[in-house]
Amino acid sequence: MHLDENSTLPFYQQIYEHFHRGITDGTYPAKGKLPSIRGLADELRCSRNTVEAAYQLLVQEGYVASKPGSGYVIQDIRHLDNVTASRDASAQSPQQAPKTRYDFAYGNLQAGTFPALTWRTITDDILLSVGIEAADTYTDANGEWDLRAEIAWRLSMTRGITCKPEQVIIQGGTQPSIQNLLCLFNPETDLVAMEDPGYDAVRKVLEHSRFNITYCDVVSQTHQFIKDVEACDARLIYVTPSSQFPTARVMGTDMRERLITWARKNDAYILEDDYCREFRYLDRPLPPLHTMDPDRVIYMGTFSKSVSPALRMSYLVLPPALLERWNETFTEAYPAVPWLSQVVLTRFMKEGHRDRHLRKQQTRNKRKYETLVDALQRTMGDRIEILKNGTGLHVLVNVLDGRSQDELIEAALAHDVRVYDTNRYWVRKDHPLAGCVLVGFSAIEEEDIVPGVEALAHAWFGE
Amino acid sequence: MHLDENSTLPFYQQIYEHFHRGITDGTYPAKGKLPSIRGLADELRCSRNTVEAAYQLLVQEGYVASKPGSGYVIQDIRHLDNVTASRDASAQSPQQAPKTRYDFAYGNLQAGTFPALTWRTITDDILLSVGIEAADTYTDANGEWDLRAEIAWRLSMTRGITCKPEQVIIQGGTQPSIQNLLCLFNPETDLVAMEDPGYDAVRKVLEHSRFNITYCDVVSQTHQFIKDVEACDARLIYVTPSSQFPTARVMGTDMRERLITWARKNDAYILEDDYCREFRYLDRPLPPLHTMDPDRVIYMGTFSKSVSPALRMSYLVLPPALLERWNETFTEAYPAVPWLSQVVLTRFMKEGHRDRHLRKQQTRNKRKYETLVDALQRTMGDRIEILKNGTGLHVLVNVLDGRSQDELIEAALAHDVRVYDTNRYWVRKDHPLAGCVLVGFSAIEEEDIVPGVEALAHAWFGE
Repeated sequence: MHLDENSTLPFYQQIYEHFHRGITDGTYPAKGKLPSIRGLADELRCSRNTVEAAYQLLVQEGYVASKPGSGYVIQDIRHLDNVTASRDASAQSPQQAPKTRYDFAYGNLQAGTFPALTWRTITDDILLSVGIEAADTYTDANGEWDLRAEIAWRLSMTRGITCKPEQVIIQGGTQPSIQNLLCLFNPETDLVAMEDPGYDAVRKVLEHSRFNITYCDVVSQTHQFIKDVEACDARLIYVTPSSQFPTARVMGTDMRERLITWARKNDAYILEDDYCREFRYLDRPLPPLHTMDPDRVIYMGTFSKSVSPALRMSYLVLPPALLERWNETFTEAYPAVPWLSQVVLTRFMKEGHRDRHLRKQQTRNKRKYETLVDALQRTMGDRIEILKNGTGLHVLVNVLDGRSQDELIEAALAHDVRVYDTNRYWVRKDHPLAGCVLVGFSAIEEEDIVPGVEALAHAWFGE
Repeated sequence: MHLDENSTLPFYQQIYEHFHRGITDGTYPAKGKLPSIRGLADELRCSRNTVEAAYQLLVQEGYVASKPGSGYVIQDIRHLDNVTASRDASAQSPQQAPKTRYDFAYGNLQAGTFPALTWRTITDDILLSVGIEAADTYTDANGEWDLRAEIAWRLSMTRGITCKPEQVIIQGGTQPSIQNLLCLFNPETDLVAMEDPGYDAVRKVLEHSRFNITYCDVVSQTHQFIKDVEACDARLIYVTPSSQFPTARVMGTDMRERLITWARKNDAYILEDDYCREFRYLDRPLPPLHTMDPDRVIYMGTFSKSVSPALRMSYLVLPPALLERWNETFTEAYPAVPWLSQVVLTRFMKEGHRDRHLRKQQTRNKRKYETLVDALQRTMGDRIEILKNGTGLHVLVNVLDGRSQDELIEAALAHDVRVYDTNRYWVRKDHPLAGCVLVGFSAIEEEDIVPGVEALAHAWFGE
């Protein structure tokens, strides 16, 4: 062995690597001894501290034991994991779909939105701080207290929702939230209802759950939805009152009142998904359903739109009676979200970063929304109908000349524009929005909106 | 307004705060104008760049719009979230249970185990790197490809498991894994089986799922378990063959062969939970069941023991036929784990940090295991029976004088020692291990083990 002065590895690590390799490949067999620290330091012409640092590392990792009187003895390492072969380079990542020039996707956010530098500063600070034993433990299954308190406080400030921190349950997204919520109900006796059309990811969860599902028509006639609700005896109904997904309709005051009355009469719970309430561009919306009856409404919120979908963080606000059932049901549960994500998000909110970040997003999305709607109207006029309500991150565009969604999407793709089908949101096959596609503006770059819409108009109407 | 040179806030931020406050509280109403940049800079005796920076911030956040020719116009901010009131200080965190001097808990890790500094360095690096658009999107619902490839490669190196990266599904822990897995089966026709005693967190999930459950006896007689299995027609069975939880028994070769034969004959799947295979202290264990029939065995692993339980990360390896069913079922699903956790863990593994970290943990846990078993034998001798097999992070201690678990736990607590009940793992009430408590060594400090066991011996036997 000799030490290489030109290596990027410090001396102690070179010594460590030498013995590590030798012990792993059998050159230095178990029960043998390492050279004495003084002897090796003299031989290598380095300091004893250097040799000792290398030996300490070998001791810590179990290759060697330091025995008083007999020096450093090589250990039997068969119980240790030793990964020596190289990785299989053939495991290639699957091919990605080619990118479209103008992609009006919904859900993903514009590249660069995630506040990476602030997130980094806070993460740094937390991981450097002393006393982070939470990092080594199973923390509160319902979420970190400070985060739940912060969310409860913000809900009261911005939504008029009154709830205690214990009612706020941190979850890893809409789907697991509903999966868990359904554990509080009984598929043999309890019917579940949702909107048609409605959020397909939620419908999937309900379908997997083996609950019987009733679909309530939100489109046919003004009060059809509430009539459908009143005609069923569901125990739980999923709704999106502040901006119905995907039609962007706002549930009116009379419908809200009838819904609450129905829930009280039927001993039912209303799951209010307020997925995009941060993004409203015209006026103050109606207060959440939750404010009308906190005992009947489960409020659900997400950080996917306002911080990042890759964060996988959302929350439920449970009515007291359901909270009790939840805590009984999930006595052996573990947190749904990593501790680190939770504490970083808490600081991100408490220190005001989220307010600033959200205002930027709100302002940008308002501009994007207005730009999109203007461009659609300017280029396509009365050949389309735009379903919108001044909220959210998408509009629906209904093309009135009888073409199907598939035809419209294919025509757009031929001009390097991607818009999305809405049939997936329907249970009914013969629905009245057969020529209606989804045009999202969360992911597309702001300056691409106008040329994208122009390309779309050209693709559809040849102009 | 004046600029405070002694403030910790930079000048531009003082200017920003002044206008922010004024616009929010109505002092500066909508449609009014901000002073010109030049005028304000002169008035405040600061540079124009300073004023411009403040104005840019106000523009970005939507308080002000910059109109060519008419300067900076204050906007209607009713659509923006504005949180101004202070937090309610009364929302106090709930009281924590008082700490016990010697806590032989299972599951939590020793404080300081989490490799916080390495985690920080990697996170830093990732959040500083360009091209992290994944941070703004819904990434692969089955997990990041590089992580899945790394896990597949390591499984082949350390476990002899042959699988492709696409078969590895990243999940947020044992419970959601099983919840999702059950979506591939039918509660009306498919019976599910598990061990008795067995992991209570898994039993809870099965109970919530409305599947019919059969419990197979792992304790009564040597082959009782496999007889119970062979007598049932379950479609899925949960087992812990390398170290049965909580009894620490190893499933013998003949039992393994009969289990595989049974699964083939009954078209059943075996869910092999290899929760603590990283920690084995005596000899090489048997290869995983998965190696005996990769088409019949679902392999499940976790990072809770080897990195951190607060990380909430685990994985499933699905047989090809089940993978197909999984992908069909979860077409609309989202990732179970935050993108950032996944990419940091990938680098942590690829750069060799995990190997080093794991070897340290393996070495320390081996010492702790030996220290614990030695101390138990030395202090309590043949008044106890120790159920152990040289793996894992706990042993069971069976006290043979007829005292109940409650009596033993209370006696220990009176001497400031905490050990844990095992009744919770049983479905049967009249089981043969009535005086058997769990003594974990994952969380307790190494130097507390001997005095903790001595205190326990004193508490139980008054010596």
